[in-house]
Amino acid sequence: MAQVHDTKQRLLETAQKLFYARSYEDVGVQEICQEAGVKKGSFYHFFPSKRDLTLAILDESWKQYRETMLAEVFARDIPPLQRIERLLEVQYRHHKTVKKETGQVLGCPYGNLAGEMSTQDEAIRERLKGIFRDLEVPIEQVLEEAMAAGDLPELDSRATAGAMVAYLEGLTLMAKTWNDPQVIRKLGAAMLKLAVPVS
Amino acid sequence: MAQVHDTKQRLLETAQKLFYARSYEDVGVQEICQEAGVKKGSFYHFFPSKRDLTLAILDESWKQYRETMLAEVFARDIPPLQRIERLLEVQYRHHKTVKKETGQVLGCPYGNLAGEMSTQDEAIRERLKGIFRDLEVPIEQVLEEAMAAGDLPELDSRATAGAMVAYLEGLTLMAKTWNDPQVIRKLGAAMLKLAVPVS
Repeated sequence: MAQVHDTKQRLLETAQKLFYARSYEDVGVQEICQEAGVKKGSFYHFFPSKRDLTLAILDESWKQYRETMLAEVFARDIPPLQRIERLLEVQYRHHKTVKKETGQVLGCPYGNLAGEMSTQDEAIRERLKGIFRDLEVPIEQVLEEAMAAGDLPELDSRATAGAMVAYLEGLTLMAKTWNDPQVIRKLGAAMLKLAVPVS
Repeated sequence: MAQVHDTKQRLLETAQKLFYARSYEDVGVQEICQEAGVKKGSFYHFFPSKRDLTLAILDESWKQYRETMLAEVFARDIPPLQRIERLLEVQYRHHKTVKKETGQVLGCPYGNLAGEMSTQDEAIRERLKGIFRDLEVPIEQVLEEAMAAGDLPELDSRATAGAMVAYLEGLTLMAKTWNDPQVIRKLGAAMLKLAVPVS
């Protein structure tokens, strides 16, 4: 059983790494198997298709990201709006580290896949939509808390959280295009200015 | 000569349309030739590779976008900040029309390509970087004008223009992921709140 788990896990981790470094379509099942040291038959034993593998990667990586990184970022040890600054700082540091290791800013794995695959695969698009919505939730809570504390004027917290997620994705795409993590550091703080009024 | 021009133009337009609807890697030279009704030998007569074709598409489409759409959006017939609202309105209407025609929000062709190809092709990444920088310039001018008129407090106009381009790209990516052009209309106005102070 341990070996079955290992093989599946190795496929997931290898594919995730390859997709992130390049793109979904540039990486085929054969390359994933080769890199993971797994036979093609085994791949199809675990995943009916590359798409199923991708959905599994999205579910697993997002679960992990929520339980570790996001939980830490949005912990209540600091005032609400500072948690958004912490989110930006964590993103900046991630991309700085990746660039140091690979020479490249790889962008947001979810944003990359959304841009490449949203018109081509409804299941993947729906999953990504759910992930972006999930990311809005703790931001919305931060905004509600900040409003209650009088640190923010009244605004539409759900729409503003949506604007902030869009801005974060846009910043990350620009950091990738400029191949420069400093884009996030330099422009990140402006995220706190975004506000959608209650309509 | 007219036919040579037609063939080349047909290849450019066909590839541009296919890339925009799907992705760069999902569309091969063979499909482009088939759709355009052009022999493969002809393709390679005009373009040494798919990448060269892509660079030509970027140059030509961006030149046209600047000379028509951007020139109209940033015309000085209305006050500076209203031109940014006009940019958002034009984007919204474009994606609404595309969705009506295809059933899908296709996103920004430059943003899509940046997300998919920036780590895989330096020439394409550099060209896209130039395009995003080009888009910052008229926004920067609008901000300078608005500051001179006293409509905006002093801010770093270049960095703020960068933030606005990032936001527009992020919004467009979210509209694609949600398959809903209303994302741009609902969250667009918040773009005018973005401000990076002079450091």
